[in-house]
Amino acid sequence: MKALSFACDYMEGAHPEILRRLTEINLEKNVGYGLDPYSQQARELIREACGRDDAQVHLLVGGTQTNTIIIDAMLRHNEGILAATSGHINVHEAGAIEASGHKVIPMPARLGKIDINALESHMATVTAEFNAVGWEHYVIPRALYISQSTEYGTVYTLDELRQLRAICDKYDLYLFVDGARLGYGLMSPACDVTLKDLAGLVDVFYIGGTKVGALFGEAVVVLNKDIRLTRGLIKSHGALLAKGWLLGVQFATLMADGLYWSIARNAIDQAMRLRQGMVDKGYKLYIDSPTNQQFFVIGNDRLAQLQQHIGVDIIEAADQHHTVIRLCTSWATTTEQVDQLLASV
Amino acid sequence: MKALSFACDYMEGAHPEILRRLTEINLEKNVGYGLDPYSQQARELIREACGRDDAQVHLLVGGTQTNTIIIDAMLRHNEGILAATSGHINVHEAGAIEASGHKVIPMPARLGKIDINALESHMATVTAEFNAVGWEHYVIPRALYISQSTEYGTVYTLDELRQLRAICDKYDLYLFVDGARLGYGLMSPACDVTLKDLAGLVDVFYIGGTKVGALFGEAVVVLNKDIRLTRGLIKSHGALLAKGWLLGVQFATLMADGLYWSIARNAIDQAMRLRQGMVDKGYKLYIDSPTNQQFFVIGNDRLAQLQQHIGVDIIEAADQHHTVIRLCTSWATTTEQVDQLLASV
Amino acid sequence: MKALSFACDYMEGAHPEILRRLTEINLEKNVGYGLDPYSQQARELIREACGRDDAQVHLLVGGTQTNTIIIDAMLRHNEGILAATSGHINVHEAGAIEASGHKVIPMPARLGKIDINALESHMATVTAEFNAVGWEHYVIPRALYISQSTEYGTVYTLDELRQLRAICDKYDLYLFVDGARLGYGLMSPACDVTLKDLAGLVDVFYIGGTKVGALFGEAVVVLNKDIRLTRGLIKSHGALLAKGWLLGVQFATLMADGLYWSIARNAIDQAMRLRQGMVDKGYKLYIDSPTNQQFFVIGNDRLAQLQQHIGVDIIEAADQHHTVIRLCTSWATTTEQVDQLLASV
Amino acid sequence: MKALSFACDYMEGAHPEILRRLTEINLEKNVGYGLDPYSQQARELIREACGRDDAQVHLLVGGTQTNTIIIDAMLRHNEGILAATSGHINVHEAGAIEASGHKVIPMPARLGKIDINALESHMATVTAEFNAVGWEHYVIPRALYISQSTEYGTVYTLDELRQLRAICDKYDLYLFVDGARLGYGLMSPACDVTLKDLAGLVDVFYIGGTKVGALFGEAVVVLNKDIRLTRGLIKSHGALLAKGWLLGVQFATLMADGLYWSIARNAIDQAMRLRQGMVDKGYKLYIDSPTNQQFFVIGNDRLAQLQQHIGVDIIEAADQHHTVIRLCTSWATTTEQVDQLLASV
Repeated sequence: MKALSFACDYMEGAHPEILRRLTEINLEKNVGYGLDPYSQQARELIREACGRDDAQVHLLVGGTQTNTIIIDAMLRHNEGILAATSGHINVHEAGAIEASGHKVIPMPARLGKIDINALESHMATVTAEFNAVGWEHYVIPRALYISQSTEYGTVYTLDELRQLRAICDKYDLYLFVDGARLGYGLMSPACDVTLKDLAGLVDVFYIGGTKVGALFGEAVVVLNKDIRLTRGLIKSHGALLAKGWLLGVQFATLMADGLYWSIARNAIDQAMRLRQGMVDKGYKLYIDSPTNQQFFVIGNDRLAQLQQHIGVDIIEAADQHHTVIRLCTSWATTTEQVDQLLASV
Repeated sequence: MKALSFACDYMEGAHPEILRRLTEINLEKNVGYGLDPYSQQARELIREACGRDDAQVHLLVGGTQTNTIIIDAMLRHNEGILAATSGHINVHEAGAIEASGHKVIPMPARLGKIDINALESHMATVTAEFNAVGWEHYVIPRALYISQSTEYGTVYTLDELRQLRAICDKYDLYLFVDGARLGYGLMSPACDVTLKDLAGLVDVFYIGGTKVGALFGEAVVVLNKDIRLTRGLIKSHGALLAKGWLLGVQFATLMADGLYWSIARNAIDQAMRLRQGMVDKGYKLYIDSPTNQQFFVIGNDRLAQLQQHIGVDIIEAADQHHTVIRLCTSWATTTEQVDQLLASV
Repeated sequence: MKALSFACDYMEGAHPEILRRLTEINLEKNVGYGLDPYSQQARELIREACGRDDAQVHLLVGGTQTNTIIIDAMLRHNEGILAATSGHINVHEAGAIEASGHKVIPMPARLGKIDINALESHMATVTAEFNAVGWEHYVIPRALYISQSTEYGTVYTLDELRQLRAICDKYDLYLFVDGARLGYGLMSPACDVTLKDLAGLVDVFYIGGTKVGALFGEAVVVLNKDIRLTRGLIKSHGALLAKGWLLGVQFATLMADGLYWSIARNAIDQAMRLRQGMVDKGYKLYIDSPTNQQFFVIGNDRLAQLQQHIGVDIIEAADQHHTVIRLCTSWATTTEQVDQLLASV
Repeated sequence: MKALSFACDYMEGAHPEILRRLTEINLEKNVGYGLDPYSQQARELIREACGRDDAQVHLLVGGTQTNTIIIDAMLRHNEGILAATSGHINVHEAGAIEASGHKVIPMPARLGKIDINALESHMATVTAEFNAVGWEHYVIPRALYISQSTEYGTVYTLDELRQLRAICDKYDLYLFVDGARLGYGLMSPACDVTLKDLAGLVDVFYIGGTKVGALFGEAVVVLNKDIRLTRGLIKSHGALLAKGWLLGVQFATLMADGLYWSIARNAIDQAMRLRQGMVDKGYKLYIDSPTNQQFFVIGNDRLAQLQQHIGVDIIEAADQHHTVIRLCTSWATTTEQVDQLLASV
């Protein structure tokens, strides 16, 4: 790994304050499985930030695990979850959703965002078809999965979320938001959605820690009581961490005084500087992304040069002579690192 | 249900010879679970007809069950099966494949047939991508599912099967043929594939009984010994029929003296008469199907009239004033029934 | 297979009236998947016989399949079903219950019947333990499985069923009765339970056809609306029979005019004659079974002789010189067959 | 949680050296998913310590997850794993093993150790039974699960492991050792098994970190190449940690210079002092445990007093007036803590 890399947003450990706190309490004796005071504090801070006293909060370790458990809590075997073709659960989970018995139903998407008209039209069509032939022959769509921000760095606006909510209400779908990059989504200047807006609109979502300042951890917020995401179900998925306070300390630290949001904002600020700098130097944007993932089309010669010094993520060939690359900032990216990048391109 | 119906190809019981044989041996005492002499005879006749002494043959009850078990025998949890978007396992199994832990990977298709170029291109692309990023993050395509004949009545030619075999060899995929309508596929004048050709080219397929003369039953033929489709696995899927001789008698009867093929041929002959008659009367074909399923575009007024006397299958709206319908013949369709249909349209 | 065999109770096809009816309607056109009039009639007759208009009835093909689907409808992944160590789901399903994600919790049993005191005591103990440590670490018992009659031919009395119901109510367990041999159980002189009693006491049970007069088929009766055993769930288990009327005709025939009960009674009558005849000839009963399965301890020399003419089921070695065998009668057993057996022992 | 507690062996964070190393490399950029140099180093150190260059090593997060994945890699749906009735997978995983489709077959055990004679006899009996009736009707035992040390603090000797190996060879079973407490097992004076012995005898085992000095982490060592425990399978279980180096650093630290073993030895030394001190004060041992878990029978009055100051684990009521309790030491237990305990009892 190169010393300077923008290849992804989870190459560093945790915000130093988290390591400091973990070291501080290291030899304290704590009860396991998330019943410790740090986890309780973290859950309380999250409920407060969401403005939802009634929310159930669970702290889990990783993204695939979290997606799998939430979906398993929502669906029966003859039900499925709608997702963008590019959605993480459709392409990047090695079959974890299906391994636990559930179908992902791919929907057309643009730049990572589900095509709302296509979704509405799909639901109208299949509803008519199922009514005619009998629902028992089909995978019944029971939930909708979106990411905020998406796999392409784009975000859903409040108006778009409301449209999705309306479709979900009309067709009896749970609305689930994968927030692995929630900090980077909500802190984007292009995003007019607050955490409270989100908590008021969706049935379940999570606040991603792994990519935003934590060593690891995703905080699931269940808002719809019909979703039976219990501690027992979590354990049956092998996901109830023995030393649960490791998650508690991390989220309590991130949620206190808005640390999570301020470090997420840093990633956005650095991404905007990186973007402007690259554009100024003549690099061509591939996607108009308002978050911490920036995509460029770059000549293959320049790419080869760049890769000698700097880690980048290769997305795909644009044409014979050009490549689409991704450069990510994160909570840990410094002004110096961006300057160094811009100096060397 | 109307007395005259062409709505689907499994509206009748079984070929009378099957009921006669079942009645004849009804009070004989037989051992269970397919170890009886009739089942042994059926398996032997099938191996012979396939020209493959080394084939393993299992007699199962229904199609969804059969697809599920074959796929479960081939795949691990992080592997998937490629299928036409219109493939039965992708749209008509209520999630049975996923319920047993496996992802169906949809591929572009035309009239029910997988687009061979799109398939090749998909495999090339994902192979490059997986090599770059690491196979562990993806559902690895491990098998290819096709139907012969397809859900739209079309058939793969011998040349097309060979092309698919070559792709499967190149990318280490099992080739699995759903033969729920195998009789109607192989007996089609448009199909130059023999049963022996098929058994020589694919890794596993089945000979459909439910739609071709049996009360129920699908005969699975496993040709690749790496596919561990055991009796124990079948039982663990709840699919080892107690009175296995019911399946044995049916397939022994169908396979003796080519009964299966001759009654399948009847369906094709009647379908061709039906097709020509409809075309002669000015009905417009929706698809050029060479098998027992015929699709027409029909004015909604005429449809309403037709449905007063005759059962048809509504596929979808063609436009505001026209509908796509399906008329099926089967092993049981008589010349009189087709004449009656043609007289009333 | 020997011409004279008492090895099990599913060696013959179906009651002749069933085959006659199937032959009679063979070329009728019927809609699939259990929506035909015969299936509707069968469901209606069963609801009536149970005295429960509100019961949901589903007609399935086989026992393992039926047990798997009922249990899957009742349990989540961190819940389990209590069963006698000798219970069919614990020892004879090749892992089908676990394959669909659920644990069977074995309970002490005597002669096939769950030990009621041991059950009560187990539930009290684990409840205390779970309350102390946290339910999330354990498989939570959520259902109780019993068989009527049991795998050893014994039956639960009405009083025993009421005791089990009380335990289930106390500990929030569903009570599920496997009725693969329900006819033989309820027709036993030792059994004071009527079908209506049963339907009034349990949450779900089934009326076994495979072993009592049908070619195949088990009629599930769901009495507790919290058990979401839907047609879609059945299909996702590969268990929605295409030609559902085959099940409908069988159960409509068996349920009309009490045929099911009268042929079950024949098995009991013949079993009682067989038992008395064997005892009169000095054979020793292994278990005091009041139903169609009779168990004897027999010297190995005599056994060898017997097996030359007659099919028996070997259960286990009793000691070095004696073997436990099972002789079954069925709906099809004739007075002549029993006489012939008694003449040859 | 009381400041002084012996309730379990995972109440503290990690050995300080681990936190120091994690802090040291915190802002280094590392590749994810265990492909970083720390993970490579950890795997190498483990292979070396095991004396098995050919071993595959995977670093996972938690115990339930690890047990589930190893078992899923070994078994098909109609196969099961034998375990002591008291085995962790049988009683403490909330159904995780079954949720992924596999049956745990309980075996008689004494003080946590499987009864070798009962195991041998069970395998002989079921083999005979399955041969007679047909293997397809049963869950086929395919693996044996033991813990070293066990849930009751006891250990298997080298001779016992060899006996178990012989049974596994005879009946074609994989031998799998749950090493959540492997350090405490192998460092016990009662245990004559070395890590190399273990790696030479079993098919798969793991070195537990969570309970022995790590924040979290279990290092799986696969020695039998037939066990296809791949990275893809791990991901499909939601268990491929994004920041894999967190595991790598921990195990590299623990494995370097025998830190793992020396801190495990501390737990044993303190446990022996605790044990002797308690016995000297008249407390009665419940089990003769040679490892870090010590069990005592204690009068209820004394227990109430004790619990005012000290955390203990209640196992069960011994009789009306006495309780069985567990006191655990760990890598973090100090001489002062044990002295303090002994002073207050």
